[in-house]
Amino acid sequence: MKMSLDSESPTIAVLGGGQLGRMLALAGYPLGLRFRFLDPAPQAPAGHLAELVVAEYDDLAGLERLIAGAHTATYEFENVPARAAAFLSQRLPVYPPAHALETAQDRLAEKTCFRSLGIPTPDFASVDTWDDLTTAVRRLGYPAVLKTRRLGYDGKGQRLLRNPSDLAPAWAALGGTPLILEQFVPFDRELSVLAVRSVGGEIVLYPPVQNHHRDGILRVSLAPAPALSTDLQQRCEDYARRLLQHLDYVGVLAIELFQLGTQLLANEMAPRVHNSGHWTIEGATTSQFENHLRAVLGWPLGKAAPRGYCAMINLIGDLPPLSRALALSGAHVHLYGKAPRPGRKLGHITFVEPSEAGLAGRLAALHSELPSLVSGLSQTTQGH
Amino acid sequence: MKMSLDSESPTIAVLGGGQLGRMLALAGYPLGLRFRFLDPAPQAPAGHLAELVVAEYDDLAGLERLIAGAHTATYEFENVPARAAAFLSQRLPVYPPAHALETAQDRLAEKTCFRSLGIPTPDFASVDTWDDLTTAVRRLGYPAVLKTRRLGYDGKGQRLLRNPSDLAPAWAALGGTPLILEQFVPFDRELSVLAVRSVGGEIVLYPPVQNHHRDGILRVSLAPAPALSTDLQQRCEDYARRLLQHLDYVGVLAIELFQLGTQLLANEMAPRVHNSGHWTIEGATTSQFENHLRAVLGWPLGKAAPRGYCAMINLIGDLPPLSRALALSGAHVHLYGKAPRPGRKLGHITFVEPSEAGLAGRLAALHSELPSLVSGLSQTTQGH
Repeated sequence: MKMSLDSESPTIAVLGGGQLGRMLALAGYPLGLRFRFLDPAPQAPAGHLAELVVAEYDDLAGLERLIAGAHTATYEFENVPARAAAFLSQRLPVYPPAHALETAQDRLAEKTCFRSLGIPTPDFASVDTWDDLTTAVRRLGYPAVLKTRRLGYDGKGQRLLRNPSDLAPAWAALGGTPLILEQFVPFDRELSVLAVRSVGGEIVLYPPVQNHHRDGILRVSLAPAPALSTDLQQRCEDYARRLLQHLDYVGVLAIELFQLGTQLLANEMAPRVHNSGHWTIEGATTSQFENHLRAVLGWPLGKAAPRGYCAMINLIGDLPPLSRALALSGAHVHLYGKAPRPGRKLGHITFVEPSEAGLAGRLAALHSELPSLVSGLSQTTQGH
Repeated sequence: MKMSLDSESPTIAVLGGGQLGRMLALAGYPLGLRFRFLDPAPQAPAGHLAELVVAEYDDLAGLERLIAGAHTATYEFENVPARAAAFLSQRLPVYPPAHALETAQDRLAEKTCFRSLGIPTPDFASVDTWDDLTTAVRRLGYPAVLKTRRLGYDGKGQRLLRNPSDLAPAWAALGGTPLILEQFVPFDRELSVLAVRSVGGEIVLYPPVQNHHRDGILRVSLAPAPALSTDLQQRCEDYARRLLQHLDYVGVLAIELFQLGTQLLANEMAPRVHNSGHWTIEGATTSQFENHLRAVLGWPLGKAAPRGYCAMINLIGDLPPLSRALALSGAHVHLYGKAPRPGRKLGHITFVEPSEAGLAGRLAALHSELPSLVSGLSQTTQGH
């Protein structure tokens, strides 16, 4: 869409009204955009600051209300029902494109896509039956991770198989839906790349980020990823470009990779703005949220250059006292307006410091200033 | 108000729904705040992203709707009717305090206040009658500026008196309302200081900014003000502290000063977030908008340290093509969602560069990249 600053404000229709949608709106209002969200939950966080249609994602009447007068539709999570995406794409531009969504929705299709583009992945096998499982385990060995192909997130829908006695319980829990068995990778660290491609084909890449998970949930991202060799950085960027171009992608794409020494294995991708990109709000010249909107509207992309050394700490389950969080020097506090619940992402705090040593000092000070923020961060575990 | 992150989201009631209110809301949503605005204009820009009560400022029923369930009230312009402020302050905390508002609403009270605190100002005289005017002109000499004591902004409600023949037309235009005659100051530059004081008395000061006006309207702010001596910077800060403490001030206070060599003369103050502080959104660790909210809620203030060398360019009257503005490397584009009209502030663009030379180069490049953005900026005129 070509437009002038002084034309009518375009309205963006967003499927999903969670914190990602909320931050999209906060980035889009300064560009003169308007927003309408659809979410099944009446208390969805985006509803605090934009029009919210409360409906199921495949409720066609709800979708009609969502897109009335809208110029473009996008989504803030990858599990949009195919029926909804198909309905919308007949009516207005919908980005990222449906085939990217379909690929990312299915771990088997996703890893097959990575491999087809020459992007290494952990070894994997399709598992639909008990026989498939036993065959796959023989080939991949232990430990391995059994995952649902669809609808898993934040460590849900997966089981670690350490030895043969883990097979039956894992099958009892997950069997009956399409599954994938993946080699368990003893990685040194997880990296992610936030990549953006616009309708016009322009590409911008954020520097790779290092992520720390606990209990399958992202806890901390460090950006740019510390001590990343030029070779690894270039490989990250090369993989991202291959995916963006192969998928004829439009919007922000997040790609998670495992680093083992000098080896890089793609784990998964998310066809949307991503938790590991929240640091870009204060830490990059242009945030992932603004660049996603620029991309889907065909506008020029903004610079992705980092503005310092950043740490993004997720607030999970419950929240520290606000007065203590705001008193932390340089803390950028982001709350999503969600009720506390174990394992729930309620907000995040970002620190941006001019030097790597300054950031290390900032994080070290948190252990005495607000221990709950960083408790257990050193015991990060593998977060497939 | 003491609160924990997990308590109910406090609602802030804001008088005025213009761009300042809109940017307050954009800064406050990440802190978990909610907003309700009151503005006589149904198309007020804050209404795009928050609840808007459409009513006159002294409509008591409208004010009731504004504050229903709200924790704190504030305003985004200084010309709130005294009746409205009095009504609100009986019902909930209202910041900045009413006496600061009253002082800033009246140029005579304002300059008298400056003088009483030992803050130098241009010479001035109260003018209520033709005789007052001729007496004042004899004392102050030419050139001098005749201004309404109240309700002037962006150069409105004032006349420059160059010689005796200017007196009668100026009196015909402005006479009949309380006036002030001010010595015309051939200043080297205009500076402003953004100062913040919280309910608890904590003070944070942004570095002084250099402002360029044209036709009485702010066009460009450079932050921090280039080549400012330590002595002048300290005097700016000293004056700001005196005012904050004398007024028992809460919130952001903007103070405009003229620099003549090593002399510093206070021109006026605005008891609110201010156009010359828009650079703080990307250019300071904590924006003026966030710090205003932290201050009125009694929360710890955020760091005001600059994050580089900044230029904020106002978009006045009409707008450049969006695609060209967004293509400017490093441009942070802010649109207010207002219809174009001559002299109207429609948006602003901020650039933040890591070095002063980098910023100079960035601005120089604008002359070829988007000349309309910077046309005539070198011909800045005195903007009393």
